[in-house]
Amino acid sequence: MNTVIAISRQYASAGRTIGHQLADKLGIPCYDSSILDKISEKTGLDQKYIKESGEYSTSTSWIFSAIAGRDYNGRTLQDDIWQVQRETIMELAGKEDCVIIGRNADYLLKDMAQVISVFIHASEEERIQRAIYEYREISESEDARRIIRQRDKRRKAYTQMYTEIQWGEARYYDVCLDSGKFGVELCVEILAQLYRSRAGK
Amino acid sequence: MNTVIAISRQYASAGRTIGHQLADKLGIPCYDSSILDKISEKTGLDQKYIKESGEYSTSTSWIFSAIAGRDYNGRTLQDDIWQVQRETIMELAGKEDCVIIGRNADYLLKDMAQVISVFIHASEEERIQRAIYEYREISESEDARRIIRQRDKRRKAYTQMYTEIQWGEARYYDVCLDSGKFGVELCVEILAQLYRSRAGK
Repeated sequence: MNTVIAISRQYASAGRTIGHQLADKLGIPCYDSSILDKISEKTGLDQKYIKESGEYSTSTSWIFSAIAGRDYNGRTLQDDIWQVQRETIMELAGKEDCVIIGRNADYLLKDMAQVISVFIHASEEERIQRAIYEYREISESEDARRIIRQRDKRRKAYTQMYTEIQWGEARYYDVCLDSGKFGVELCVEILAQLYRSRAGK
Repeated sequence: MNTVIAISRQYASAGRTIGHQLADKLGIPCYDSSILDKISEKTGLDQKYIKESGEYSTSTSWIFSAIAGRDYNGRTLQDDIWQVQRETIMELAGKEDCVIIGRNADYLLKDMAQVISVFIHASEEERIQRAIYEYREISESEDARRIIRQRDKRRKAYTQMYTEIQWGEARYYDVCLDSGKFGVELCVEILAQLYRSRAGK
């Protein structure tokens, strides 16, 4: 059975960076936005639209269309995307050991693969710095704290809508780490050690 | 500055065992019920009473006396115990590197020592087994799930009453681990590694 490291994370907590560095260290693939490519391919929907319909979105429009806009089966386009996302993640996990960033892979794979579910977080101060100066997704003039809180709220709502997981609650994850406290390198090292122990490698 | 590893934990999650083994491995002291001794010594109150007034309690009577029973300054005996507990933990942290189990040491020391705050949890199934067959605190005939949930609720309420920490929420801890998933030994190893990195030892 393949071991999959599923990383959930607060916005701008370096979870993505940790995931990629971890995969490099372990010599296994890391799936991130590449999952969007695959969903786009399968549904014929535009990547931007899929992004807007998922946890990556910065708008709240998705939640309205997730509630409204149901077809005669009571399904929305969001539900369909969730379904394809589910299939895509299952396929990836079936192939080989890997790291998957976001997209509720921990929940989707809980019955299938030998999953190590991870939650990465950091202080708001750390994350504001990263969002402005590293990601360059928020400008210095904006209310960074408000934007960061909004994005986390969004991820939490998305998880709540499609899973039974309480986003950010320790008991739903195998390991949670403060990337600001320990730094990216040590987080990668710890996760690699947990992977090796679990996967017997 | 001393490094203190402050361990919070779900009931029967092996957090105490992990703390003691970690301290042994690192050659530093571990304070657990010994804190109760010290509080008892300072206040002249019976250990059993202090236990009942804190997170260790299994009854709910403390919360009524914490709300009612205020003296002319609006303080309760629980507030006084909290104050002595606070002083005791500060003193211990001031002496040398150590592990402290429970008693909200993470919160109390947040401004003082170089704290590594830890939250240990495990699945209910794991904890039921431990509570019945290892701790022998719950009998086979009892509703173990209900008792376990009640005890966690109690710890959460105690934390909420005296701190701003949301008990069990990942972002309030530096590291959270599922002791059932990884086992005690690996949890101890991971925490030792984090300690050595932080303390530069």
